[in-house]
Amino acid sequence: MPMAIFDVPLARLRERGSIKWRRFDADVLPLFVAEMDADLAAPIAERLQRAIALGDTGYPEVPEYQAAMADFAGWMWGWDLDPAHAKLATDVMTGMREAVVAASEPGDAIVLNPPIYPPFRAISAGRRTVEVPLVDDRLDLARLEVAFAVERPSVYLLCSPHNPNGTIHTLEELTAVADLAARYGVTVIADEIHAPLAGAAHTPYLTVPGAANAYLVTSASKSWNLAALKAGLVIGAPADLARLSPTMSDGASYFGVLAHTAALREGRDWLAGAREEIAANKVFLAEEIARKLPQLSYTPSEGTYLAWLDCTPLGLADPGAHFHEVGRVRFNLGREFAPETTQFVRINTATSQAILGEAVDRMVRSLGA
Amino acid sequence: MPMAIFDVPLARLRERGSIKWRRFDADVLPLFVAEMDADLAAPIAERLQRAIALGDTGYPEVPEYQAAMADFAGWMWGWDLDPAHAKLATDVMTGMREAVVAASEPGDAIVLNPPIYPPFRAISAGRRTVEVPLVDDRLDLARLEVAFAVERPSVYLLCSPHNPNGTIHTLEELTAVADLAARYGVTVIADEIHAPLAGAAHTPYLTVPGAANAYLVTSASKSWNLAALKAGLVIGAPADLARLSPTMSDGASYFGVLAHTAALREGRDWLAGAREEIAANKVFLAEEIARKLPQLSYTPSEGTYLAWLDCTPLGLADPGAHFHEVGRVRFNLGREFAPETTQFVRINTATSQAILGEAVDRMVRSLGA
Ligand SMILES: Cc1ncc(COP(=O)(O)O)c(C=O)c1O
Ligand SMILES: Cc1ncc(COP(=O)(O)O)c(C=O)c1O
Repeated sequence: MPMAIFDVPLARLRERGSIKWRRFDADVLPLFVAEMDADLAAPIAERLQRAIALGDTGYPEVPEYQAAMADFAGWMWGWDLDPAHAKLATDVMTGMREAVVAASEPGDAIVLNPPIYPPFRAISAGRRTVEVPLVDDRLDLARLEVAFAVERPSVYLLCSPHNPNGTIHTLEELTAVADLAARYGVTVIADEIHAPLAGAAHTPYLTVPGAANAYLVTSASKSWNLAALKAGLVIGAPADLARLSPTMSDGASYFGVLAHTAALREGRDWLAGAREEIAANKVFLAEEIARKLPQLSYTPSEGTYLAWLDCTPLGLADPGAHFHEVGRVRFNLGREFAPETTQFVRINTATSQAILGEAVDRMVRSLGA
Repeated sequence: MPMAIFDVPLARLRERGSIKWRRFDADVLPLFVAEMDADLAAPIAERLQRAIALGDTGYPEVPEYQAAMADFAGWMWGWDLDPAHAKLATDVMTGMREAVVAASEPGDAIVLNPPIYPPFRAISAGRRTVEVPLVDDRLDLARLEVAFAVERPSVYLLCSPHNPNGTIHTLEELTAVADLAARYGVTVIADEIHAPLAGAAHTPYLTVPGAANAYLVTSASKSWNLAALKAGLVIGAPADLARLSPTMSDGASYFGVLAHTAALREGRDWLAGAREEIAANKVFLAEEIARKLPQLSYTPSEGTYLAWLDCTPLGLADPGAHFHEVGRVRFNLGREFAPETTQFVRINTATSQAILGEAVDRMVRSLGA
C-alpha cells in the first residue's frame, strides 16, 4: 500500500490558512484540531473546480446530498435510509443544536458522556447538563439508567463513534441505549460525524432494534476533511423532523452539498485508503510510544483518527501545556474534554508518519529538558 | 465597455445545479432568485482553486474577512470600521436572526417594512411583527414613529438597500431613523448585503450621525454571487457584540471566508464592471418594457440588480403565476414580499440583455395567448 494520502510535505501544509496551521507559532508542530493533513480526494476537487468554472455559486436545490448519504449508508452499513428522512443543516454541531431545541425545553436535563467533544456542552446551553462519564472508554449503561430514572432528561447526546477516544459503541450497547431511551422517554441525538471512518464496525443508531424518538446528525466533513465546505444532515422519522426549525436548512452551503455529495458517491476508494493509512498510523504511534516513552501506553483506538493518551505516569502538572511550551508540539488538551482528564492529550493521527514520529520525539525531548 | 460579465450563454447556465436553474422546468426562463448569471470574478476563482490544490479545507482562524470588509468599507464609503467590531456568522440571514435573539425577547414587537425580502418574517418568529409599509418605495418616517411610540418595539429590521425594489435610503432618512431609534430605545438591525452593488450612494447605517444600539449585517455574497460559499459578518459596538450567542461564528465556512475576502480585496474591478452592466441592463429593461409593454412602466431602480415591476395595468389575477405558466418565464411573485403586492413581479436583471429581452418577449407573448 503506498503511503500517499497523508504524505503531504510539512512545508506545503504550512501554506494552509486553516486553524491547524495558524493558531500557534510556526515552530509548533500541530496535531490538535480534527483537520487532516491530506490532499483532497480527486473527485471532490474536480466537482468543486467544475462549479467554479461554471460560476455555479448559488443556493442548493436538488436533494443530492441526502440521496448520496442514503446510497453510502446502504453500501457501507446496509442501512435502507429514505433520503426524505434527511434534512440539510449548516453543519453537524448546528444540526445537533437544532435537534436539542426541537427535543427539549430550557431547563430540561440533558445527558452526555465525558470526556466529550467540547461543543457538546455549548449546545446544551440553557439546559441542565447531567454527566455520565465513560468507564474504561465505554458507555456506563448502569449509570446511564440511573441518570435517566433520577434526572428524567429529555435528551441524551450520544457521540458515536466517541470523540476523543474513538470508541465504537457495539450493537449490544446501542440496543441497551435504545431500550433505556424508550423506557424513560428520552430523545437520543446521535452525532455520527466520524462514522464513515469507522466503517462497518459502526452501527448507525437509527438501525438499532428499538431505536425510536431519535435524531442522527452526520456529515461527510470529518471523514473527507471538508470542514471548510459546510453542510450536514439531520436524519429522523418524519414526525421528529417536523419538530425542527423551518429555517434549519437555510444555512447549508451549496459548495458543501456538492463536495459532500462527491465524497459519499465517488470518494469511497479515497476513504478506504485513508482508513488503511490511519490504522497503520495508529499502530506506528503505539510502537513509537512503546519504544520512546515506555512509561506510557497507547492501544490503537477503534474508530476515527484521534488517539487519546493518558500521560499520568509522566508526573506533569499539565502534560498538553508542557508538550506545547517545552516540546513545541501541540495536541488537544485533556481538560478541553472534561476537567477530570487533564492528564490526557488527544493526538491527531491523520498525518504522515514523519510528522507523527517527530511529534513523539518532541514529547521525549521536552521531558529531558 | 465590453458586455462581458453577464454574457454567459444560456446553454452553459443550464449546466448549473443551483436553485435558479433547477427549481422549474427546463423550458422556463428563470429570472427569479437573487443569483447572478455571471462568471466568478477571477481572483475569487483563483483563491478557491489554490485552497483546493493545497487541501486547505479546515476551519477558519485568521480574521481576514473582517479585515477585508474594513478595508473595503474604508475605500468605498470612507467608513473607518474596526475589524474587531465584526463577528463571523454563517450567512446574513443567520446573522440577522442572531441579532434579533440578542436584542429582543419572545413576544416583543419587531418592526419591518413590507414589501420585504420574505425571510425577514421568518427571522421574526416568536416575536410580534409590526408592519410599516414603504410608501412610493420609500420609508414612511411618520408611520415609523407612530409604530415606535405605540408598539414599543425592541427591534427595527432595516433593509438597506431595500429588497425587492432596490431603494437606497438617503442619509436624511437614515438620520431620522437613528433619531427615532434613540428616542424610543429601539435596536436597529440593518441588512446591508446589497450595499457593495449600490456603491457610494449607500450610507452604512453605523456611520449615520446618532446611530447607536445597532447591528449591521453584511456579506460579499450578493454583490459577487457567492451564496454557495457561505459567510457573513455582524458588525456592532463591542457591548452589542457581547450580547450575541458565543456559538454564532461556528457556522461560517472557511471557503466562504476565503472567497468573500478575495472578493472584497481583489474583486473591485469586477464589481465596478458588474455595476456598469447592471445599470445598463436596467435601462435596457425599461426601454424594452416601454416599447413592448407600454401599459407598464419601469424606472430603473437605485440599488442592486432587482427590478420591481407593477403589473396592475395588465388586469391579471396573478401576473407572476401567469408569466410562469403561460409565458414560461419565472420572476419572483409579488405576494412573496407582501400580500398587498400580488400585482408585482421582481425581475433579476443580473443577466445578459439577450435573456432580459427574451423575458420581456415571453411576457408579451403570454398576453397574446
Ligand atoms: C464529534 C464531532 N462532532 C462534530 C464535529 C464538528 O462538525 P461540524 O464542523 O460539521 O460542526 C466534530 C469535529 O471535530 C466532531 O469531532
Ligand atoms: C436583503 C437580503 N438579505 C439576505 C439575503 C440572503 O443572504 P444570505 O444567503 O447570506 O443569508 C438576501 C438574498 O437575496 C437578501 O436579498
